[in-house]
Amino acid sequence: MTDILDYPIQALTEYVRYPSVSADSNFSAGVAGAREFATARLQELGFSVETIETPIHPVLLGTRGDPSWPKLVIYGHYDVQPPDPLDLWTTDPFDATEREGRLFGRGAADNKGPQIVHMVALHRALKQNPDLPLHITYLIEGEEEIGSPSFRPFLEDRKEQLMGDMLLVSDTGSPGPDQLVITTGLRGLTALEVKFIGPKQDLHSGVHGGALLNPLQALVQICSSLHDESGRVAVPGFYDEVVDPQEWEKGELSKLPINEDEYKNFLGVPSLSPPPGYSALEAIRFCPTLEFNGLGGGYQGEGSKTVIPSEAFAKITCRLVPNQKSYDIAEKVRKALESACPASIRVEVELKGGGDPYVVIPPGKPGSSGEETALMKKAFSLIEDCVDQQFGNRPIYLREGGSIPIIRDLQEVAGLEALMLGLFTNEDNLHAPNESFNLQIMERAIAAFENFFVRLGDEKK
Amino acid sequence: MTDILDYPIQALTEYVRYPSVSADSNFSAGVAGAREFATARLQELGFSVETIETPIHPVLLGTRGDPSWPKLVIYGHYDVQPPDPLDLWTTDPFDATEREGRLFGRGAADNKGPQIVHMVALHRALKQNPDLPLHITYLIEGEEEIGSPSFRPFLEDRKEQLMGDMLLVSDTGSPGPDQLVITTGLRGLTALEVKFIGPKQDLHSGVHGGALLNPLQALVQICSSLHDESGRVAVPGFYDEVVDPQEWEKGELSKLPINEDEYKNFLGVPSLSPPPGYSALEAIRFCPTLEFNGLGGGYQGEGSKTVIPSEAFAKITCRLVPNQKSYDIAEKVRKALESACPASIRVEVELKGGGDPYVVIPPGKPGSSGEETALMKKAFSLIEDCVDQQFGNRPIYLREGGSIPIIRDLQEVAGLEALMLGLFTNEDNLHAPNESFNLQIMERAIAAFENFFVRLGDEKK
Repeated sequence: MTDILDYPIQALTEYVRYPSVSADSNFSAGVAGAREFATARLQELGFSVETIETPIHPVLLGTRGDPSWPKLVIYGHYDVQPPDPLDLWTTDPFDATEREGRLFGRGAADNKGPQIVHMVALHRALKQNPDLPLHITYLIEGEEEIGSPSFRPFLEDRKEQLMGDMLLVSDTGSPGPDQLVITTGLRGLTALEVKFIGPKQDLHSGVHGGALLNPLQALVQICSSLHDESGRVAVPGFYDEVVDPQEWEKGELSKLPINEDEYKNFLGVPSLSPPPGYSALEAIRFCPTLEFNGLGGGYQGEGSKTVIPSEAFAKITCRLVPNQKSYDIAEKVRKALESACPASIRVEVELKGGGDPYVVIPPGKPGSSGEETALMKKAFSLIEDCVDQQFGNRPIYLREGGSIPIIRDLQEVAGLEALMLGLFTNEDNLHAPNESFNLQIMERAIAAFENFFVRLGDEKK
Repeated sequence: MTDILDYPIQALTEYVRYPSVSADSNFSAGVAGAREFATARLQELGFSVETIETPIHPVLLGTRGDPSWPKLVIYGHYDVQPPDPLDLWTTDPFDATEREGRLFGRGAADNKGPQIVHMVALHRALKQNPDLPLHITYLIEGEEEIGSPSFRPFLEDRKEQLMGDMLLVSDTGSPGPDQLVITTGLRGLTALEVKFIGPKQDLHSGVHGGALLNPLQALVQICSSLHDESGRVAVPGFYDEVVDPQEWEKGELSKLPINEDEYKNFLGVPSLSPPPGYSALEAIRFCPTLEFNGLGGGYQGEGSKTVIPSEAFAKITCRLVPNQKSYDIAEKVRKALESACPASIRVEVELKGGGDPYVVIPPGKPGSSGEETALMKKAFSLIEDCVDQQFGNRPIYLREGGSIPIIRDLQEVAGLEALMLGLFTNEDNLHAPNESFNLQIMERAIAAFENFFVRLGDEKK
C-alpha cells in the first residue's frame, strides 16, 4: 500500500487543493476537505483522532502512544487566509504549482507546508521505530486565521488531555534556507475600535465651519496624543509592566543575515523609525506598539466634498511584550482616548480583545528557570544539532513581532512551553498573493525533524 | 402649448431627475441631461443660448433684450453634490418626493430650486410685459460643486459679454420662510489633497510594527499640528491678512430668529466650539477655517485587519475671509504640512484651487462706496419691498460661511456687484442626505421675484 506521506510535495499539493478559508462560509466544503485530509494522515500515522465541534470549525485532536511516555503536543492549523485579490496570483491558489524551487498555493507556507513537514518526519521516524516511546497529542485547529475564537473554551474543556511535557509548533518565520530561527517569543495583542461622534448629521463645511469641532479634527487631535514626539506610546502606564529582554537575546540579532539598511530597503521607507534606544530589528521583537490599522471619515471618493462628517473612526491594535496584559493595556488606551476627548464631541471605545505576550527562555540560557521538563531540555538541545546537520548552521533564538495567542493559552491552561522552529520566510508571501513554500527548507526540515523525533524517543528509552 | 414653467414643482422635479454630479465621471449623462433641461427652459423664456465647452462641464450663456437696456446678469449652477451616503436617504435622491411642504432630492435646494424660482418668476414677469426692458444675461455653470475650475478662464474669455450693471444670485441661505437674508459676503475657499506615503506595500503590523512610522500615525501627527489647543488655525501667517467686519454687520445677527443655544441643538453637538473671541454665529461668517473633509487609510471594513498601510490621505479645505487670498493660504498650508512631515515618510500636497472671499456693502450702509450703478441701487431698494410683501419681514443683511468663488471672479473681471437673496435654509440639508427645498419659500420667492423683475424693468423705462 502506498502512503501519501511517502511523497511530501504531492501530499502538500493535495492538502492545498482543499480551499479551507475559515473567514468565508462559502468555503465550508474546502474547510471540511482539509480537515478530512489531516484526519486521514493522522490515522495513517497511528493516531486515534477525535473531531471536536466548535461554534465555527472543529478542532482535530489525535493521540498515539502510552500515557506513561514523555508527552509531546504538536500544534498546527488546517485553515488558510482568503486568496483575494485573485487576479494577482500567477497560478490558481488552490492548484499548487512548483516553480523555482517553491510550491505556490494558498496555505503552502501558512500552515499546511510546515504540517506536512512534521507529518512526513514522524512517518519516517515511526518507520525506523514503530514503537517510538513518545506520547504525542496532535492538535490541529481550523480557526487560526480568524483569531482562534473557539480555542480557549475548547482548551478549558480538554485541558486534561493537553497537559504534557512540551509543545512543538512550526508557524513562525526564519531568514532563509541556510538559517533557521527558534522563536522564543510572540508579542501579545489587543484591539480597539473607536468612534468620534460629532453633529447629528453630516454638515456643509462652508455654512457651518467654525461653529463646531469637526470629528475628523477631533480624531487627529485625540489620536496624535497617543504617541509622543519620539514615537513612544504616550498612553499613561503603557510601559509600566514592560520587562527588558535579556542581553543575549539582543545579541542573537547580530547573527541575522539582514542588517538595518537591508531591512529599510525591504520595507521601502525613506528611513526606519524605531522608538528611542532600539534598532528597528530590536523594536519589532522587544518593544510594544500602538498602531492605527485603519482611520476613516468624511468624503472618501474622487475629488472633493466640503463636508463636516457626523462621525469618524479609528481601528487600533497594540502589540504587547512581557509583562503587559492585553486587557490592562486596552483599558489604559481607552482611558487615554476618553480623557483626550474634548467636551464638544463624544468618543466611543469598544474593546475587541486579544491575547497576552509569550516568551520562552531556552533551557540553559540566561534568564531560564532551570525547571523545564526533561523532554523540553532534551528537545532544545537536540533541535540545535538536528538543524545544524541539515541546514549547515545552528538555529538562532529570536522573538517574533507577530502574535499567536493560543501559544500563550496553552502555556496558561495546560502548562506547555513551546519549541517553535520557524519554517517560512519573508519571500513566502504569507497572507498575500502568490504564497509559496520553499522546497529546500521543506526537504531539510523533514530530515531534521525525522532525526529529532527518533532521537527524542531514543534518549527517553 | 403647455410650458413646464407654469408648474414650478413639476419643473423642479424634472430638473432633479438628472443626476448631475459633477465630481464623478460616472454621472456624465446626468450632467448632460440637467444642462439640456436648463437650456430648453432658457430658450422657452426667449433667450438665445450658447453652450460653451470647458475641460469638464460646459457653461450655458443665455441672452435676451436690447444691449442699450440696463444689464442684469443672473447666475446659477446645474451641477449637484454626490448623493452619498445613499443608504441614509429616505427616498431616491434623484426621484424628487414631496412631503411635509418640502420637495426632497439632491440639488432641490442647491441650486436647482432657486433656479426654478428665478425662471418661473421671469416667465410670469415676461407674460405681464413681454418687452420688459432689461437686458438679461443668464449664466448657468456645471462645475460649482467641484470648485468651478473652468470658470475663471471662461470669464476672461467672455468678459465683454458679462459686463453689466449687477449680478443676481440665489445660492445662499436664510433662516426660514418668514425671514430672508440678503447675503453680503461669502467666505473664500482653498482646497488641498494630501497623501502620506510610507512603505512600498501594505505590511503586517505584527511582523513589522515598531520598525517604521505608520502613515496613519504620520497623518494624525501632521494634521493635528494645523490647529492649536484653542481651535485656532496654527498654520504660520494664516491670520495675517484678516480684516475685522463692520460693527453693523455684527449687529444684524441680533435680528436672526435663532440663538446660540438653538443653533447648538440644531447641529446636535454637546457644545459649540467657535474660535476664541467669537460666538458660533459670528465665527461661521467672520472667521476663517481649516477643515478636514475626508481622512482615510488602512482597513476600512468590518472587524479588524492588522495592517500598516502603504499610504493614507487627507482632503482639506480652508474657508477664507477678507483679505485672505486663496493661493497664498494654500501655499501656507502646504508649507505647514511639509515642514511638519518627519523624514521617515513622504507627504505629497496637491493644491486644488478655490477662490477669494467676497463682501458687498449694500448701497447706503456704513462702509459702502456710494458709487454703485443705478440698477444696483434700485435693485437693493426694490428687493426689500418685494420680500417684505411676500414674507412679512424685510430681509436682513448677513455674510454667509459658504463660498461661491465665481462671485468674486465676476466682480474682479466683469465689474459686477451681487444682490444675493438666500432661498435655502438649514433644514434643507445641503450636501447631506435628504436634501430638500421648502415649497412655501419657493412660492413666496417666485411672487417676490416676479414683482421685482417687473418693477426693475418698469422703473428704468
